[in-house]
Amino acid sequence: MLPFDITEYQSRLLKTRNLMEKAGLDVLLITDPANMNYLSGYDAWSFYVHQMMIVDIHESQPIWIGRFMDAPAAKVTTWMTEDHIIGYPDVFVHSNTLHPMQFIGDFLHKKGMQANRIGVEMDHYYFSAKAFEELKRSLPDAQFLSGDLLVNQVRMIKSDQEITYMQRAAKLAEIAMYNGVQTVRSGNRECDAAAMIYYHMISGTKEYGGDYPAIVPLLPTGERTSIPHLTWSDRTFQEGEGVIIELAGCYKRYHVPMARTVSIGTPSTELLRISSIAIEGINRVLQEVKPGMTCGDVELVWRHSLKAHGIEKESRLGYSVGVNYPPDWGEHTASIRRGDQTVLEPNMTFHIIPGLWFDRSGVEISETIRVTETGCETFTNFPRELIINSSFTLEDQGEIS
Amino acid sequence: MLPFDITEYQSRLLKTRNLMEKAGLDVLLITDPANMNYLSGYDAWSFYVHQMMIVDIHESQPIWIGRFMDAPAAKVTTWMTEDHIIGYPDVFVHSNTLHPMQFIGDFLHKKGMQANRIGVEMDHYYFSAKAFEELKRSLPDAQFLSGDLLVNQVRMIKSDQEITYMQRAAKLAEIAMYNGVQTVRSGNRECDAAAMIYYHMISGTKEYGGDYPAIVPLLPTGERTSIPHLTWSDRTFQEGEGVIIELAGCYKRYHVPMARTVSIGTPSTELLRISSIAIEGINRVLQEVKPGMTCGDVELVWRHSLKAHGIEKESRLGYSVGVNYPPDWGEHTASIRRGDQTVLEPNMTFHIIPGLWFDRSGVEISETIRVTETGCETFTNFPRELIINSSFTLEDQGEIS
Repeated sequence: MLPFDITEYQSRLLKTRNLMEKAGLDVLLITDPANMNYLSGYDAWSFYVHQMMIVDIHESQPIWIGRFMDAPAAKVTTWMTEDHIIGYPDVFVHSNTLHPMQFIGDFLHKKGMQANRIGVEMDHYYFSAKAFEELKRSLPDAQFLSGDLLVNQVRMIKSDQEITYMQRAAKLAEIAMYNGVQTVRSGNRECDAAAMIYYHMISGTKEYGGDYPAIVPLLPTGERTSIPHLTWSDRTFQEGEGVIIELAGCYKRYHVPMARTVSIGTPSTELLRISSIAIEGINRVLQEVKPGMTCGDVELVWRHSLKAHGIEKESRLGYSVGVNYPPDWGEHTASIRRGDQTVLEPNMTFHIIPGLWFDRSGVEISETIRVTETGCETFTNFPRELIINSSFTLEDQGEIS
Repeated sequence: MLPFDITEYQSRLLKTRNLMEKAGLDVLLITDPANMNYLSGYDAWSFYVHQMMIVDIHESQPIWIGRFMDAPAAKVTTWMTEDHIIGYPDVFVHSNTLHPMQFIGDFLHKKGMQANRIGVEMDHYYFSAKAFEELKRSLPDAQFLSGDLLVNQVRMIKSDQEITYMQRAAKLAEIAMYNGVQTVRSGNRECDAAAMIYYHMISGTKEYGGDYPAIVPLLPTGERTSIPHLTWSDRTFQEGEGVIIELAGCYKRYHVPMARTVSIGTPSTELLRISSIAIEGINRVLQEVKPGMTCGDVELVWRHSLKAHGIEKESRLGYSVGVNYPPDWGEHTASIRRGDQTVLEPNMTFHIIPGLWFDRSGVEISETIRVTETGCETFTNFPRELIINSSFTLEDQGEIS
């Protein structure tokens, strides 16, 4: 029941071990749940306690180590043999005297890794300052080095099977967006729209359902469209308001984010103006993207397009996306911004999100793209326009409603 | 539009400053989004980038510091004056040369805090090993001390307004559970049940809607009921299977979790047996809980109840709950387990979750409780039984369907 053939996991592990060799690492300790999933298949909501995957450069299987009650999840969701799955006792959980890294440090010691060069994901959510302190205390002779974003780099170029999963995620995003837009009407509440989006992103199609996305639907409304990361309230939508919907379809943990801006009834002149600037900008970018460009080059296309309208935007235009867990669907590797030297290659995937936020209004109209051999293509097929909800229909409504 | 009166926030801040004094801290740096929300009201999905709240022991307002595009969210969701809201430029986000803690370190330096005793939340998700390294590098003369769980301790005893919000969250949990149970039927898919749960936990009642919970609905099915932290798939439910539903209603970020076990059709003898053990155990616990007991005492009641059936359970029986953000609704302070010396006081709130997981089946039947002056009461009013879905109805169905 693994989402990928075992040989795909083994190939990912091999690439990881090759990068470890270049970085001079004997061992890599992985705490990013997306990286754990990517290498092993592991999938459970257990990252709220400390857990880790150990990659030994000489070994053909990683080791999963986590809370005892989650070891059965590792047994059913990963490809490793059971002797590679280790549980620590519950007394280590949220204790003020014991810490899971003491157990893990002891385990590494027993494995003979106490004087190794050990890579750790220094800037990941699930590797806390204390986890690092405890690990260093347990292994005083080890040399700790940065393993930051090492597996994330491997994740950047997607396999055909990953692209297929993202295509399914895209269909889920379309369905959720379509139904969300239908619910964004004066008299409905923001929570009704959020509920409808959730219902459809998860129940999905007859053929497949969706997973929880790494970020909840974002739904800034009215003047709050100038504030990108607000969620919803139980306030009632008003005629004439703008509403931003940013969501992602998620399938087998693979994300396709999409943002659209909706006007409830006739849009303001300002909303029309900034929408058309955002759409012109993203259209130019989508025309220009091709392998061999850097992310910085891509951002320059957007910057020039904006400049023609006398606008400068501080925030990045986009970022690499794929498999992920809360709290972020971005891969934290390449950003589409000034100076990013990452060279585009086929099957890299990005969320291109030209957000324009002003004092009292904002707009987001985004696409998730795959770099192809000759250019790029969008995952979703959804009108790239300011949506006037009173007149909005889709030709293939029957299929996705 | 703050969910609490400004005096309630100020009182929380005062309690925090008192604990800081006892701990010998000049400054406390808060990265836990629940603690940030608790002290300031701050509420946005921005914790996927580095952000912080600075509490100076001499100051009557905290300072919010985060990504520039989230500063407007701080302006509209907190009670602090605008000069206490600081944004850092976007170039610090997910960069391999710059780190937000460099900006924050510089800011603390300018504030004259460079030689202070600074408390940090060492074991929180959103304070990474690298964040701590960068902060120490920026402030070489500061003394860093543990501020772990300091604000979390203040959060343990709820105010009347917080209890009111948890009562609303409880109603959302009931609605979501009721509708989830109705969807757990042979022929439906797990994703259909998850979608229905989400729809109702968020659309809520006519009077109010719900927020996203800190943990997604958990839905282990069949043999996988032995594995607590699995989410859903698009597999079809089968007649005769057991299904665990663990979810929380969430209102203004306050959580009331609840778990129930459902049998699709006639339950197996084993499921009947372990359910009755779990129910007997939780009923005994609910009868015994009262102020003055320790969490360890409470666990002993459960342990004795289990022992009569020849069962020992390794995992803790419960934990403190309240305001929270992903990835956990637990407060990480008191656990209901052997040896926990926390003394129960009125308006402490716990999720009591007697989960029993065996090789091929498991059961969870839980309650979230408030400690009262004389005992305890449950937040939800939902049959505390193994639910046989073919015959399940609620008397007040009209109200919550």
